[in-house]
This record gives sequence, structure tokens and C-alpha cells, in this order.
Amino acid sequence: MKRKLIGVMGPGDGANKKEIKRAFALGAEIAKKGWVLLSGGRNVGVMEAANQGAHSEGGLTVGILPDGDSRRVSEAVDIAIFTDMGNARNNINVLSSDVVVACGMGAGTLSEIALAIKGKKPVVLLGDERQCETLFTIIGQSPLHVAKNVDEAIQYIEKLLFKPKKKQPEFIKK
Amino acid sequence: MKRKLIGVMGPGDGANKKEIKRAFALGAEIAKKGWVLLSGGRNVGVMEAANQGAHSEGGLTVGILPDGDSRRVSEAVDIAIFTDMGNARNNINVLSSDVVVACGMGAGTLSEIALAIKGKKPVVLLGDERQCETLFTIIGQSPLHVAKNVDEAIQYIEKLLFKPKKKQPEFIKK
Amino acid sequence: MKRKLIGVMGPGDGANKKEIKRAFALGAEIAKKGWVLLSGGRNVGVMEAANQGAHSEGGLTVGILPDGDSRRVSEAVDIAIFTDMGNARNNINVLSSDVVVACGMGAGTLSEIALAIKGKKPVVLLGDERQCETLFTIIGQSPLHVAKNVDEAIQYIEKLLFKPKKKQPEFIKK
Amino acid sequence: MKRKLIGVMGPGDGANKKEIKRAFALGAEIAKKGWVLLSGGRNVGVMEAANQGAHSEGGLTVGILPDGDSRRVSEAVDIAIFTDMGNARNNINVLSSDVVVACGMGAGTLSEIALAIKGKKPVVLLGDERQCETLFTIIGQSPLHVAKNVDEAIQYIEKLLFKPKKKQPEFIKK
Repeated sequence: MKRKLIGVMGPGDGANKKEIKRAFALGAEIAKKGWVLLSGGRNVGVMEAANQGAHSEGGLTVGILPDGDSRRVSEAVDIAIFTDMGNARNNINVLSSDVVVACGMGAGTLSEIALAIKGKKPVVLLGDERQCETLFTIIGQSPLHVAKNVDEAIQYIEKLLFKPKKKQPEFIKK
Repeated sequence: MKRKLIGVMGPGDGANKKEIKRAFALGAEIAKKGWVLLSGGRNVGVMEAANQGAHSEGGLTVGILPDGDSRRVSEAVDIAIFTDMGNARNNINVLSSDVVVACGMGAGTLSEIALAIKGKKPVVLLGDERQCETLFTIIGQSPLHVAKNVDEAIQYIEKLLFKPKKKQPEFIKK
Repeated sequence: MKRKLIGVMGPGDGANKKEIKRAFALGAEIAKKGWVLLSGGRNVGVMEAANQGAHSEGGLTVGILPDGDSRRVSEAVDIAIFTDMGNARNNINVLSSDVVVACGMGAGTLSEIALAIKGKKPVVLLGDERQCETLFTIIGQSPLHVAKNVDEAIQYIEKLLFKPKKKQPEFIKK
Repeated sequence: MKRKLIGVMGPGDGANKKEIKRAFALGAEIAKKGWVLLSGGRNVGVMEAANQGAHSEGGLTVGILPDGDSRRVSEAVDIAIFTDMGNARNNINVLSSDVVVACGMGAGTLSEIALAIKGKKPVVLLGDERQCETLFTIIGQSPLHVAKNVDEAIQYIEKLLFKPKKKQPEFIKK
């Protein structure tokens, strides 16, 4: 049966220490929950850290690479998917994730958030991206969930994974 | 010889009247300049209007469709490219444009702006997207050009198309 | 209105002199008919020759590049579409062509013929690919048309472009 | 560390009983070896059977879907990757497999064999596809391995996975 995939998106080369620390902790918590970690799969930044975090807790990791070969894949990726389609693979990252978590911000991550909204996937912003939230609220197509820390992010993910779909509104039931 | 392609991005179903009017005028001006109009190719919103505008001045139009067949293609598209890859085709739109112009905003358009920044393509925002500009300035990877009206957008495009590349710095020339 | 696109597929680096000569002649005839030439867009082999042929008769040419930038584009390509998705772009070549013509054979070309059959696009094999025809007949999903020379190929294309679709069978009309 | 992925390709709706039986047995053997099964992920034909076979032995399965959502995914797929790019995803199937096994033949499978040759991936043909072998030998870009039965296919895969790369030829060593 299809396992739950949690996509962790964030900067590669441009990630700062705080984002990397958070990505590691997030990967570890995702693994503890028994979920599969999905990322862009490269051996840098948020991708590398989240995969290492998941491995530290014995989790399973999937990497969706922009490349056609294994030169830049993280050593902590178990299942490497080679797309050879550059940033167009960002759409696959998003469509294959049950919930998308953005950990830090950059042009690639922003494109993934936008594609997630377009594809009606739930998004959790981990950190201080309030400004970004404002932008997306104005665009107005999707509720974004801003989490202050990893624990809050995990709580959001859990809620989003298991929320009852197409539930009857209260006033109809009455 | 490769002709200049100007990509016009913007909402489909969600476009408002102001955006549609602007897109038509922008398409017409692009055609007058002898440039080729590139768009997402569908028969709605900013895509439809920009293609109609270009045709009103006898311009050539290219549509990069998300679909695998012609059901939703604008009648004002001359060259229809069927990708059958949904929103992943947004990256092709951006990579194939010499300059990207965003006319209005939505999740798809935002993904295209982000992918353009990622791909180091010049972007012109046509309209009032100041807030968006602020966001991108903070992301800090690319100068965005905000144009108040179509004329200003065309001036930006012209400057961006013909700016000298790899110019020697002054101090070396001396 | 959407113009007719004729896709010419064939080897790049591995093309022989006969294939290159045929591709040039084919491109020229396509242009004379007023059709648009679509190819893989690179500056080698059948792609380069077909584009040069089309230009020799003032035709319009579209190249669907595997790359994300212009380093390997043929100088005889007018409209360059940069996919940055390697051989996955072969499916776009096929879906965007009204008729696919294979001029010579190689692994890439074979994948395009197979994808054309999968996508229910008409295919003309130009040359001596009888063996290939046998294979595809066994696969049995599509009639392939084998043309002995460029004139015969053009006749097939014309027939395929303008054949009445969903025509009532004779016996039903009676 | 990256796990070994064995790609099993073959017809979906058009698969016959023999192919389905073989695909199930092949999936089971792949799982017994501790390899991960990769397929096109749909709930029909060779894909469904290979995934069920792998699950019958407790194996891990990855499906690379042509769709953007889960409507047609096999219930025996653990990791579902949603590409929303139709047959263009065939190239991802091939690039992500350490060895590609064709179990039966059809237009989609043929495109995958051709793309595998193009991408220099080893291919094992399981069954009686001698004619196909002849074709590919003439194309001449890759040795294909024809296996009479599942055991022989597994032996080929094992050899291909663990063959020493860039080994010095004997005559040089002397």
C-alpha cells in the first residue's frame, strides 16, 4: 500500500546553518513517525540535512534528482529517481508529496510552493516566512500553515495527512 | 537565425479585465517590434488575450501547452507545442523566453517567476506587483523590473534584449 | 490558426551522408508546401540538414532542444524551444507534430517512432527501414508508411494531413 | 546508501497471460535478492503483476506514474512518484533503473528499450523477443541480453549489477 511521503523543500547551496539544523531535526521526526522523506535528493543544503536526519532514525528516503546520473546524489538517499529534467522536476517533488514542507526560502523553493498551491497540495512553511505567507494569502488560492518550529510542523503534517476528506459541513448534518 | 521570443505569463481562468486588456496591448506591441510571442497557449485569460493582441498586428505566436492534444489551444496560436506535462511545462516557457513578462499574478505565474529567477532569465512585472517585488528582492537572487504600463514594459524588454553581454569593465579597458 | 507541423526525426552525430542529403531535400519540400518543420533542433546530423533544407526554401523552422540553453542549437532554427529535459523531450517532438517522418535510424529515433505509435501519431519511414517496419507490424498498434524517397514521403504526409477524420464507412452510408 | 533498482517494463492493458505470469515471478525473484522493484506503477498488466510478485516476497516497490494523481496506481506500489508527464516519464523509468528488464513488448516498452540504449543502461529482454534483438543489434549501440526465463534474467541482472567497471583489458595487464 502506498506509504505517506513528506516532501521537504529548501535551499541547496544557499542554505544557512539554522535551516540545515532544522532540516536535520525535521527529517529525524518524519522518520520517527514512520513516514517516508522525499526531497530533491542532492548532497547539499536542506536536502542533504533532511536525508541525514531521517537516516539517523532509520527512516526511508527518496530523492528526486534534477540530474540524469548519480554524481550529485546525497549518500543518505535510499531510492534515487533520476529525472534529467532540471527544475521541471520540482513539479514531480510536489505532486508526489502528501504534504510539502518548506524549510528556508530560495527561488527553487518558491517555485515548489507555487506549484504545490497550483496542484492543491497542503504546504507547511517552517520558520519565519511571514512575508511569504502574506504574498500567498493575497494570491489567495490556498491556506498556508506557518510553523514556528519542527514540533509544530509535525503536528500540522499529522493533521493534514489524516484530516477527513469531503466531510459533510455541520449545518447540513443537522 | 533564432528569433527573439518574449514570454508573457499570467492567470488563465482567474484573470481580471484589467489584466486581459493589458495582455492584449502587450501582445500587440511585441508583434509591432517583430518579436515572437510565447505563452502557455491556452484559450483563456492572459494567454488568449496576448495571442489575440499579437495577431491583431500580424505577429507570430508560439504556445507551450500543458496538454498532449489541441482541445484547449488558443485559436490565435500559430505554433502549438504539446508537452503533456502539466505545470512542469512552466519551466520550458521560461527557458525558451529571452525575456519573461508577468501580467497579473497567480500560483502558476508565481512558479514561472521563481523558475525564471532560478534559470537566470530577466523578468518584467507588468502592473502593481510591488509586494511581489519585495519578496523577490528579499530572496535576493535577481533584479526584477516593475513596469507601470505596457510602454514601460516594452522599454525594459528592449533594454534587456540588447544589453551588451560580458562587457569589459572600465578599469580593464584603460 | 494552428499551422501544420511536420516532425523530422533522425540521427544526430551518427547520421550518414545519404541520410543527411535526404533530410535536406525533405526539409526543402516541407517548406515549399508551406508547412512548418519541427525537429530536435541540434546543430548536427539529420536535424541540422532538415533545418538548412527548409531555410533554403524560406521555410519556418522549430527546434525542440534537449538542452536548457542555446549552445547546441542549429543556426537554421527560427523558433528554439529549450526543454532542459534530455531525451524526455522526444515525447514533445512527437506530440507536437501532425505527421512524424523518420529519416534514418538510431536509438533516439526509434524511441520517437515508438512514442509516436503510443501517441497515435502517423509515422512515415523514409528509406530502407523494412526491418523496422516488420517489427512495428508485429507490435501491431499502428500502420507505418514506408517511403522509398522524398517525393513519396511528401505524398504520404499530404494524404495523412488532409485525410477526412471519422468518416463514415461506405457500407454504413448505403 | 542508494539501493539497487531493477526496472521491469512491459505492456499495461495489452499484456497476455504468459507475460503476466512471468512478471509476477520476476518481481518475486527481485524481492528475494533484496533489490527494489521499479515500474510504471499502474494497476494493470506487467506493472501490476511485477509489483504483486515483489510484495509476495516482502519486497519494496517504486512506481513512476504517468499521472498526477493516485487514481490508477497499483495497490502493490509502496513509493508512488507522480510525474503528470505521460509517456515522457518513460525516460525517468529508465534513468532510475540500474538494469532494465523488458517483459513482453508494446509501443511503450519499445520506447523504454530505445531510451535505455540511448542512456547507456543495460537491458535484459525476457522472453522470445529475438526479432527485436536483431533490430537493436543492427542499430548497434548496445549489447542486449536475451533471457529465456526468469532465472536466466536474474543471472543477467546480477552479472550486470556487479560487473567491475572500467576494468583493464587482459592484454594490457600482461
